[in-house]
Amino acid sequence: MALHRHSNSTLEDTVLSVGICNFTCPVRIPEKNGGLQQTVAAITLTAKEPASQVESSISTITGLLYSHLPDIHSGLFPGLLKSVQSELAASEVCLEMRFPYFIEKAAPMSATPSLMEYQCAFTAGSAGPENTEDGAEPLLTVVVPVTTLCPCSKEISEAGAHNQRAAITLMVRAKALIWLEDLIALAEACGSSEVYALLKRPDEKYLTEWAYSHPMFVEDVARKAAQLAAAHPDITWFSVAVESFESIHAHSAFALVDSETMAEMA
Amino acid sequence: MALHRHSNSTLEDTVLSVGICNFTCPVRIPEKNGGLQQTVAAITLTAKEPASQVESSISTITGLLYSHLPDIHSGLFPGLLKSVQSELAASEVCLEMRFPYFIEKAAPMSATPSLMEYQCAFTAGSAGPENTEDGAEPLLTVVVPVTTLCPCSKEISEAGAHNQRAAITLMVRAKALIWLEDLIALAEACGSSEVYALLKRPDEKYLTEWAYSHPMFVEDVARKAAQLAAAHPDITWFSVAVESFESIHAHSAFALVDSETMAEMA
Amino acid sequence: MALHRHSNSTLEDTVLSVGICNFTCPVRIPEKNGGLQQTVAAITLTAKEPASQVESSISTITGLLYSHLPDIHSGLFPGLLKSVQSELAASEVCLEMRFPYFIEKAAPMSATPSLMEYQCAFTAGSAGPENTEDGAEPLLTVVVPVTTLCPCSKEISEAGAHNQRAAITLMVRAKALIWLEDLIALAEACGSSEVYALLKRPDEKYLTEWAYSHPMFVEDVARKAAQLAAAHPDITWFSVAVESFESIHAHSAFALVDSETMAEMA
Amino acid sequence: MALHRHSNSTLEDTVLSVGICNFTCPVRIPEKNGGLQQTVAAITLTAKEPASQVESSISTITGLLYSHLPDIHSGLFPGLLKSVQSELAASEVCLEMRFPYFIEKAAPMSATPSLMEYQCAFTAGSAGPENTEDGAEPLLTVVVPVTTLCPCSKEISEAGAHNQRAAITLMVRAKALIWLEDLIALAEACGSSEVYALLKRPDEKYLTEWAYSHPMFVEDVARKAAQLAAAHPDITWFSVAVESFESIHAHSAFALVDSETMAEMA
Repeated sequence: MALHRHSNSTLEDTVLSVGICNFTCPVRIPEKNGGLQQTVAAITLTAKEPASQVESSISTITGLLYSHLPDIHSGLFPGLLKSVQSELAASEVCLEMRFPYFIEKAAPMSATPSLMEYQCAFTAGSAGPENTEDGAEPLLTVVVPVTTLCPCSKEISEAGAHNQRAAITLMVRAKALIWLEDLIALAEACGSSEVYALLKRPDEKYLTEWAYSHPMFVEDVARKAAQLAAAHPDITWFSVAVESFESIHAHSAFALVDSETMAEMA
Repeated sequence: MALHRHSNSTLEDTVLSVGICNFTCPVRIPEKNGGLQQTVAAITLTAKEPASQVESSISTITGLLYSHLPDIHSGLFPGLLKSVQSELAASEVCLEMRFPYFIEKAAPMSATPSLMEYQCAFTAGSAGPENTEDGAEPLLTVVVPVTTLCPCSKEISEAGAHNQRAAITLMVRAKALIWLEDLIALAEACGSSEVYALLKRPDEKYLTEWAYSHPMFVEDVARKAAQLAAAHPDITWFSVAVESFESIHAHSAFALVDSETMAEMA
Repeated sequence: MALHRHSNSTLEDTVLSVGICNFTCPVRIPEKNGGLQQTVAAITLTAKEPASQVESSISTITGLLYSHLPDIHSGLFPGLLKSVQSELAASEVCLEMRFPYFIEKAAPMSATPSLMEYQCAFTAGSAGPENTEDGAEPLLTVVVPVTTLCPCSKEISEAGAHNQRAAITLMVRAKALIWLEDLIALAEACGSSEVYALLKRPDEKYLTEWAYSHPMFVEDVARKAAQLAAAHPDITWFSVAVESFESIHAHSAFALVDSETMAEMA
Repeated sequence: MALHRHSNSTLEDTVLSVGICNFTCPVRIPEKNGGLQQTVAAITLTAKEPASQVESSISTITGLLYSHLPDIHSGLFPGLLKSVQSELAASEVCLEMRFPYFIEKAAPMSATPSLMEYQCAFTAGSAGPENTEDGAEPLLTVVVPVTTLCPCSKEISEAGAHNQRAAITLMVRAKALIWLEDLIALAEACGSSEVYALLKRPDEKYLTEWAYSHPMFVEDVARKAAQLAAAHPDITWFSVAVESFESIHAHSAFALVDSETMAEMA
């Protein structure tokens, strides 16, 4: 542990990450269908620097970010990160955008269209959970609601089975562009059934019966999502967290797996 | 509208409510079984005064509240409100405590005990949603989780029915003391089934089958809670709000009813 | 109290409000400058009905709301409310949209432009805090950050004065259209100084000195906003709540005033 | 990257973390003065296992946790973790408790006592951010409010300086027991001034003048806390995050440093 050697060093030697967080601005996100979706993002922008240089970094960071308004979109990530890095002589920079993303989805039987909201995030730079030298593609995060229906409850009961909404948080690092639409579809396939914003009666019948015939524990959902992510040719790192808002309890059950723990089993 | 007559009056004539909010302290809540439960409350304390008098009201309020630490409990309400009112010559005062309250509950078949948490609040004084001249009993709020199982989904499906956690928020004003335990029990009886912290397999089987045989829409839960509250001899005003965290949707369904809207139907 | 007469009535007689909440969709808000701002709203839509009629109200409500996607904007309020009311034979309907709204603002000295975010809400229908027969204009809510600088701290200290961010929540009902831009400007004028997203050094000097020469207690801010709202020719009802995130405390100070408490002083 | 080798493996081979989260129970925390503080904690309990074994892990975990109620306190950590690990044959277990902790604090001049609340957490087991073979001491987290007063604003302005509340989040791993009281005191010494729950006028004067004569940027606070943590003989790893709720902006400035980035500067 090299730490204590440094306790006598001057404060000015310390390497710090400094930045801004908790502010919101309109952003545009490229859609798979070629459109550009207008939404609203909470942005965090950080630079890692020797303490002796940070003096006016925060206002420089804010100024660089604002110089791109009102046209902030994910295509700006490489240029914005580069300009922050060069203006500040920062060793690392990190930009995160969290935003709701909307996808029109057809109900399973009636094909009634409705709009689903998914919380998503782009995280770019060299300070993410998995370091990449070139930082080509940002870390993507999608939070996808699904239904889980308890296999145990189904097995032991004469009729019915408790079920509930669950949220899959899938984070991936990829070597090529992956559309949010495709990542969300990957996760939506992993529950007992999908979730929709608007359903007609035939849809509700279909989903109820489908969920009842596809019981899954929260860990089954996590494994399935992990297996799909592991099989994806462009995904180089991932984590899956599933939280099930248990309908018979007041607390949640959850399961976590990532590409490194999967690798442990080899 | 008398409002515009006042636009020329001096600022000092205005009547304001001033106070403190968002602070947390340990409190003790009397239990039905005779004990005193130690928990943690977020407190809001407000006084209504002519603007010309508010100068040091906020520090006076804080000081009076702190003079009761570390023994803040609901028994202090009348005295604390009275001392705030007299020290500040306030026309109205209001004290609210929001706290988690814990009740041990036995599982329905195995009788396994576990501890359930309920968000509760006491609101006392003359500024509540329902004014009482003497402010004898505080307004009580309990938030109680239950399961709702969809009658429509059950009816149209060959097997299963979607179900989910829901939260009943019951607020009551009473002419005599009502224990939190009794108010929570009243609400827990109103869903498709109750919710527990710890269940064995026979309990899970029992609850799954019970919920399946007691399907309820969110409005059915609200009506049932409203009817029980209306039939209670000591409750003089109530409101019921039920939010169901739909397992087939990403949004909530809810229903609201209060003693005044019930009275409309006469 | 007519309540207990009804405790024997059947559940079907009860009048309930039912609806959906906690869902999010893209919306467009008309700007004062003639544009249409694309943002994201959390929507609540409620209908008040006899319990015997609510059976499929929630899916009808959802369907009517989605029939306007992806073009939900405030201009739809009258038509959407009317269609919900007529399809459901509802006695009252209420629609609320909460959304972040963005306004470009120039720094006070350098005129550097930046984008400020304000939480806003439109609430329309007959179930708002102030009933209007025709429901012509929606209830408007704006949450506006300002700085408060403590007069007491300034007066007693040889140098400096504690100051902090505060949030003014201004709700108004008006007899004619009021732009969000104008309502926000009204509130921004009420603190010790305004808040900006991006400032240069001359701006920071100007704001620091301005705040120091305009000390205000949280109740002063509330009174000033109340007086401006009371003097506005089109505002028929308002409430002002100011919460100051005290820099020397871990809790907040707040002050409340509305057009009715102002009227008390007459 | 070994990942893709595993994409053909059966789901049962995957190693998962499963557990419960978001539930709350009363807990007791040992105080430095010898007492035992009763408070309320949100608990997360996780076990890492081969997927083929997780079947009933979640109910086993819940049962083991509840077997210690109502006497959950930090002294149970080693035994509880050991029993979870042995009953589940888990490769790793992790237990986290988040709770408000209260300390009586005397105002700086008048010595008026008041109670401050600090959000704290204990995280024990082998799945924390820094792995330790024996897991002797839990990871400690304290969130400590302080005031920051801007050096730039002070320097350029003729009078006053903008200041605001900030939150220091200090996480430490230690080789011996460190009291929460001592960790909180370490952090409280790092801002422009400390924060109190109740102050008299002489205290307010003292704190205003003290903050004005101790201006600090958010990064200065982070460096000072890091240097104190690095100099502590028992701390073997730490991270410091400081978020300043800027009074002249609507967003936050923040700074981060940990024992590893400090080590980079060598």
